[in-house]
Amino acid sequence: MGIVLGPNRYGKAESRVVRIVRDTARHEIRDLNVSTALHGDFAAAHTDGDQSQVLPTDTQKNTAFAYAKKHGVASPEDYAIALGGRLLEATPAARGASVKVEEYAWDRIEVDGRGHDHSFVRRGGEVRLARVDVERDRTEVRAGLEDLVVLKSTGSEFKDFLHDEYTTLPDADDRILATALRAEWTYARVDGIDWNATYADVRAIMLATFATTHSRALQETLYAMGRAVLEAHGDIQAIAFRAPNKHHFLVDLEPFGLDNAGEVFIAADRPYGLIEATVVREGEPS
Amino acid sequence: MGIVLGPNRYGKAESRVVRIVRDTARHEIRDLNVSTALHGDFAAAHTDGDQSQVLPTDTQKNTAFAYAKKHGVASPEDYAIALGGRLLEATPAARGASVKVEEYAWDRIEVDGRGHDHSFVRRGGEVRLARVDVERDRTEVRAGLEDLVVLKSTGSEFKDFLHDEYTTLPDADDRILATALRAEWTYARVDGIDWNATYADVRAIMLATFATTHSRALQETLYAMGRAVLEAHGDIQAIAFRAPNKHHFLVDLEPFGLDNAGEVFIAADRPYGLIEATVVREGEPS
Amino acid sequence: MGIVLGPNRYGKAESRVVRIVRDTARHEIRDLNVSTALHGDFAAAHTDGDQSQVLPTDTQKNTAFAYAKKHGVASPEDYAIALGGRLLEATPAARGASVKVEEYAWDRIEVDGRGHDHSFVRRGGEVRLARVDVERDRTEVRAGLEDLVVLKSTGSEFKDFLHDEYTTLPDADDRILATALRAEWTYARVDGIDWNATYADVRAIMLATFATTHSRALQETLYAMGRAVLEAHGDIQAIAFRAPNKHHFLVDLEPFGLDNAGEVFIAADRPYGLIEATVVREGEPS
Amino acid sequence: MGIVLGPNRYGKAESRVVRIVRDTARHEIRDLNVSTALHGDFAAAHTDGDQSQVLPTDTQKNTAFAYAKKHGVASPEDYAIALGGRLLEATPAARGASVKVEEYAWDRIEVDGRGHDHSFVRRGGEVRLARVDVERDRTEVRAGLEDLVVLKSTGSEFKDFLHDEYTTLPDADDRILATALRAEWTYARVDGIDWNATYADVRAIMLATFATTHSRALQETLYAMGRAVLEAHGDIQAIAFRAPNKHHFLVDLEPFGLDNAGEVFIAADRPYGLIEATVVREGEPS
Repeated sequence: MGIVLGPNRYGKAESRVVRIVRDTARHEIRDLNVSTALHGDFAAAHTDGDQSQVLPTDTQKNTAFAYAKKHGVASPEDYAIALGGRLLEATPAARGASVKVEEYAWDRIEVDGRGHDHSFVRRGGEVRLARVDVERDRTEVRAGLEDLVVLKSTGSEFKDFLHDEYTTLPDADDRILATALRAEWTYARVDGIDWNATYADVRAIMLATFATTHSRALQETLYAMGRAVLEAHGDIQAIAFRAPNKHHFLVDLEPFGLDNAGEVFIAADRPYGLIEATVVREGEPS
Repeated sequence: MGIVLGPNRYGKAESRVVRIVRDTARHEIRDLNVSTALHGDFAAAHTDGDQSQVLPTDTQKNTAFAYAKKHGVASPEDYAIALGGRLLEATPAARGASVKVEEYAWDRIEVDGRGHDHSFVRRGGEVRLARVDVERDRTEVRAGLEDLVVLKSTGSEFKDFLHDEYTTLPDADDRILATALRAEWTYARVDGIDWNATYADVRAIMLATFATTHSRALQETLYAMGRAVLEAHGDIQAIAFRAPNKHHFLVDLEPFGLDNAGEVFIAADRPYGLIEATVVREGEPS
Repeated sequence: MGIVLGPNRYGKAESRVVRIVRDTARHEIRDLNVSTALHGDFAAAHTDGDQSQVLPTDTQKNTAFAYAKKHGVASPEDYAIALGGRLLEATPAARGASVKVEEYAWDRIEVDGRGHDHSFVRRGGEVRLARVDVERDRTEVRAGLEDLVVLKSTGSEFKDFLHDEYTTLPDADDRILATALRAEWTYARVDGIDWNATYADVRAIMLATFATTHSRALQETLYAMGRAVLEAHGDIQAIAFRAPNKHHFLVDLEPFGLDNAGEVFIAADRPYGLIEATVVREGEPS
Repeated sequence: MGIVLGPNRYGKAESRVVRIVRDTARHEIRDLNVSTALHGDFAAAHTDGDQSQVLPTDTQKNTAFAYAKKHGVASPEDYAIALGGRLLEATPAARGASVKVEEYAWDRIEVDGRGHDHSFVRRGGEVRLARVDVERDRTEVRAGLEDLVVLKSTGSEFKDFLHDEYTTLPDADDRILATALRAEWTYARVDGIDWNATYADVRAIMLATFATTHSRALQETLYAMGRAVLEAHGDIQAIAFRAPNKHHFLVDLEPFGLDNAGEVFIAADRPYGLIEATVVREGEPS
C-alpha cells in the first residue's frame, strides 16, 4: 500500500483589487478582496518539483488586476465568472478554477444634501461574498454575505429543551437574540441573473424575516429566513447559514437595589452558540 | 538615590454594556464598551500589598452596569460623566477617575418601508468615542470617533517634496487619498452641550470638508477639517487627528497591453503613512 | 418541488477551559479552547420551534467543563473522545458529536536554572489541534497544528513554470520560502495511540523535513513532509496541509548604491500564495 | 483668538524589514516591524500644502530598508539609533525623529539534535520592542516587550479591599494570576550598553520575580518586578508596566456533584482588569 498525493489545489489569496470607474466626473468604486485557486493534475509539481504545468500564483494575481480593467466589475459574480474562465483557459492541466470575492461597500459622502462625485465613506457592516467554481463543462455561482450583525431586543424565547445531569440553563421566555450572520446561497443557473438586484433583495428578505419572526430558537429563525429567500427566488436552489448565537446575559442588579426587566445586558464574546443550517429545494444537491 | 513607585493607575477595561430602553414597545439600544480607571494615592497596594484603599475593578464593572440602569445612557458622554463622578466619590484615595466609552451604532431593520420596533442591524463603520476625566475640582470631556474610512478617487496630489539620496517617489498629480480616521475633540466646558447633536454635526463637517478640499497632502486635508470643526463649534477647544495614509498603488497593466488611467489599484496594508495633527484655539492647551 | 431543511448542526464554540492539575505542589496546566457540535435529527427545532430533542449549547459547555475535572485532560484527543461520547449518549436524536480542541502550550518559568512549580509562561508559536467525530458505531480522530511559522533563507527556488500573456514573474533560483503551516492528520484507529508522543514526533518530522528538503516549490516541500510523516507513522492514514506562501520580496537597493544579495527583504501580508495538499495511503479515504 | 496648528508629526508605520545575515553558510535572521516619525516645523504642509520641507514617508521607508543593509541590525536599539539619526540629518525642519521597532524572534529548526544553518521556526510568545527618540542634542532609548503571557496557578490572593454599595466580589485567598505583560524601560544613557544582553537579562529578572513573588495584588507583583530590574541594572532609570489582569474564574461544578478545588477555570476575554504602574529612580523623570 503506497503513499500518494491526495486532493490538492493552489492559488493566490487576498488580492486587494480596487476598481474606480471614472468614465464621467461621477466616479464609481468597487472594492474587492479576490482569491483564486486551481485544481487538476498538478501531481508533478508535488512529486518531481516540475512546474511546467503550473500557472504561477503571481500570474493569477496579475490576471485578477487585468480583468478588473479588461472585463470590469459590473458585479462580483460577473467579474468572478470571467476571471475563473480565463484562469481555466490558461491552464491546460486544471480541471477547475475557483474564484472567491469579498466586496466592501462604500457610500458617497453627503455634501449639501447630495452625494459627492468622487469622495466616499466605507459603509461598514456586512461583507458581500461571491464564489464561482468554473469547470470545463459547468459553472456554479454562490453569493452571500458575512458579518451581518442583527439583534432583537424581544420576541425571542428558548425553553422546553432536553435536560440531562449537566443542564443548568433555565427556560427563557424573553431574551435578546443576536447573531453575526453568514449566509451563502447557490444559484440554479448562471445566465440571466441580475446579480446585484438579487443580492439586495435576498439581504432585505433575510433582514425582514429576522425582524418579524417570533423566535423559539435561532434554528427556527434561520429556517424561516431560508424558506422566505427560496420562496421569493426560484433561481436559488439552496441557502446555507452559519450563525453564532451572540449571548447577551441579563445583569443581576438586585444586589444594588435595582430591578432589571430586560434593560441591562452584558454582551459576551466567548463561548457562543454556533448554529449551522441549510435550506434546500427538495431533490436538489445542497 | 532610591527606587520608588512612579505614575500608576488601575481599572476595568472593556465592559460590554448593552442598554435596552423598553419603556414603550419601540425599543432603543445603546451598545457600549466601557473602560474605567482610577489614579491617586494607591502606593500601599504596590509596596505593601495593602488593598484597603483600592476599589476593586470588579466593583468598577458593577458600577458601570448599575449606572446604565440608574442613570441611563442619554449619550456616552453624559453616562461617562455620571459614572466617573460616582467612582471618584466611592474612592477617597483617588484623585481622578477616567471613563472611556466606545459606542457601536445600530439601525432599525426596515420592514415594509418602516423601521422595526425591536429588531436592529449593526451599522458598521466608525466607532463613536467618549472620554471623560473627572477630578475633584474639574471634569474634562473629549469626544470622537475612530475607523471612519474615507476615500477620494481624485482631487489629491503630492509633489514638490524634499528630496534626499533615498528618495525614489515620483511626484503625483492625481492619486487616491484614503484613510481610516481617528479624531478626538476636547470640549471647552461640560454644561449645556448637546452631546449627540454635536457629535453628528462634527462628523458631518469632517466628511464634507474631506470631500470638498483639494488635497496637496493628507496634512492639509486634516488641518482643513480641524479648522472647519473649530469654526463651527465654539465649544470645542481642540481636535486631534490620527490618520493612516492607506496607500492605493496604481497597477502597471502595460505588460498586458492595457492602459490604466487611475482605474485599477492595489490597496496596500503595510507599511502606511501615519499623520498625526492637532488643531487648537490659540492660547488653549491641546 | 418543496423547500426543506438540509444539512444542519449546532453546538457551543470556544469554551475556554483551563485545567490545573494540582495533586502535588508541582502543578500542570492544560489550556484549551473547546468547541462541540451535534448533528442528527433536529428538524423539529427548525420547523416547529420544538426543542424537546435539543441538548442546549449551554449544557454542552457545562459538560466540557465538568469533563475537564471528571475525565481529566491527559491529552486533547483523549479528552475530546470522552466529551464527544458523553454528548452523543446524552442526546438521543444525535447521530454524531464533533469536538474540536485547540491547545495553547505553556512552559515553566525558569528560576535558578529550574522550572518553577506553579508559574508558567505561554510558549507562543503553533496551536495544537484535535478534532474528534464520535458517531454511534465509529470514532474518527484527527490531530494537527496551525500557525507553525517556518522560513528557509536559502535552498528554495521556483522556475520553469507555465507562462501565459499575464505572466511577469521571473525565474527564482534562490528565494526565501516561508509559511504559516496548518497540518491535520487522520488516525487509522483510536485505541493504543500515544497522542502526546505522536504529536511531538509528527511536529519534529515536519520541521526537519522542511529544513532539509531543497524546495523547487512549496508543493514539493509539503509533499515531502507528508510522505515523511506517513512513512514514520503507520497509524496515520492521511495528512492535509494548508500553507500560505508568505512572500518575502528582495528590496531593490541599487538606487542607493547598495547591493542586496539576498540580505534585505520586505515581508508582504497580502496577497499570498495558498497551497493546499493532502498526502494519503493509497486506497484510504482522505 | 485664532485657530492654529497644534502638535503634529508624520511618518511611515510598519515597514516589515527582514534582514538575513549570510556572510557564512550559517545564516542569521532579524525580523522587524519598523515605524518612523518626524516632528518639527512642518506647518506649511498643513496650512499651505507646501511639501518642500517634508521628507516623504516613502523616503523614510526606503531609508529603513537601506539602513538594514548599510548599518545592519546588531540589535533593534542600535539599528533604530542609526536610522533615527539619519532621518533627522536628512530633514532640516525636523526637531526630532522617532523610531519604533518590534522584533519577532526565530529559533533554528532542530535537525539531528543541532540547529539548522538556514531553516528557522518563529518562536512566538512576546514581541521585543525598541523605541528611540533622536533630537538635535540628545537621544533617548527605551526597550521593552509586549505579550509576555504569564500565569501563576497558586500564590496569588486579593482581599481586604475597599467596599462600597456596588461591591460583590468576595475575598480570594488563592486564585490564578495571569497577565499579558507589556514592559518598557528607559535607559539612562546611550553609549556602552549591550542591548541584547540587557534585554535578555531584564526579561529573565521579570519572569523570575513574577514566579517567586507571593502576590497580594497584581500591583504588588509589578512593583516587585520593577524594583528587581532597577536594582540589577543601574543603567535603567525607569520601567513602565501595562498589565491586563486576565481573569480565570473557578467553574461551579457542584451542580454536577463534582468538587473544584482550584482545578477547572474558565478563561475570560473581557472585561479585564488593567493595571499600569511605573517604577523609577527617585529624582528621575519617568
